[in-house]
Amino acid sequence: MARTGRRPSGSGTQDAILAAAMTAFTESGYDGATMRGIARAASVDPALVHHYYGTKEELFVAAMQFPIDPAVIIPALLEPGPDGLGERLLRMFLGVWDSPNTISPFLALIRGAMSHEASAAMLREFVGEAIIGRLTAALDVDRPTLRGTLVGSQLIGLGIARYVIRIEPLASASADEVVAAVAPTLQRYLTAELPRGEDPAAG
Amino acid sequence: MARTGRRPSGSGTQDAILAAAMTAFTESGYDGATMRGIARAASVDPALVHHYYGTKEELFVAAMQFPIDPAVIIPALLEPGPDGLGERLLRMFLGVWDSPNTISPFLALIRGAMSHEASAAMLREFVGEAIIGRLTAALDVDRPTLRGTLVGSQLIGLGIARYVIRIEPLASASADEVVAAVAPTLQRYLTAELPRGEDPAAG
Repeated sequence: MARTGRRPSGSGTQDAILAAAMTAFTESGYDGATMRGIARAASVDPALVHHYYGTKEELFVAAMQFPIDPAVIIPALLEPGPDGLGERLLRMFLGVWDSPNTISPFLALIRGAMSHEASAAMLREFVGEAIIGRLTAALDVDRPTLRGTLVGSQLIGLGIARYVIRIEPLASASADEVVAAVAPTLQRYLTAELPRGEDPAAG
Repeated sequence: MARTGRRPSGSGTQDAILAAAMTAFTESGYDGATMRGIARAASVDPALVHHYYGTKEELFVAAMQFPIDPAVIIPALLEPGPDGLGERLLRMFLGVWDSPNTISPFLALIRGAMSHEASAAMLREFVGEAIIGRLTAALDVDRPTLRGTLVGSQLIGLGIARYVIRIEPLASASADEVVAAVAPTLQRYLTAELPRGEDPAAG
């Protein structure tokens, strides 16, 4: 190892990989960053990055402290079938926000995306591929990606209104009351017939 | 005027009032700031603040460059009655985001509210009183304020997903396609029967 100038394995190495990954994702976006480039920036063998983190997606989740592992969570939400998917998705989302340790790095990610185009691109690419892509690939509906982004729009707005701006009575409503009001919205976006609007060229 | 150390009227005076108002709203919140305190901070007669800006609400709109004047817009949206209110509200909202000059101070306001509790309180108080309060006072429904905040949650999330993070295909969808998909959500939040969830103590 010393011959190549590479770090040995160990926890300092993992920290170096995570730091290099955070820089790479922030600067090059999720699509632009590569496992090989991150390994090089961390002065480790690419095989070690794969050994510790598996895929680029898992490395992103670890480096950006993303609040869920979509590769695990999304298939579990989809498994019982499309009925009730809106509610399962919403309960998972509320659970994430109710956990302060989990939510604070996610909030930093959203704040970054609202202030810097590079951070917006990174979040857009990751959410599009890891979450919306998985969700919509499993649904037999027209315009699945538009549906996924509509779900995302309601969820992100709910998170900000309820947990960040904390507007009442939404902030203090029970999870059950929020689910009763909002889950039908998500379910409709996911699986109901969605009118196309007047402009046939769109979407 | 010189005797009291107060500024004479004129455009420098208006700038001083707006600057003092911005400071007061940001530091004391919308509820905490007073016309009298703002006049004092700007070294002008309180009557002059009322002369230029009428009410505290109008002063807030001017000082924070809020994208709409709720005292004018909300009654106009309500005037045709509850049918179609979701669509009218949404088209107004999309129009605001489509105007770059209007949206950039509003975005700064949201960014501030996501980073500082005092800014969140200010936005929460203003939106609660000037927009949601007006909207819900006109609707004969149960839990009108919860309904208003649900509408707000979908709108703010739509604004962020479509215009800030710009996730596709939501970002490029035509206004008509967005309206076809999202207006029924808003209309349901505003006027449809909304289930209460399992917890009767909530909301």
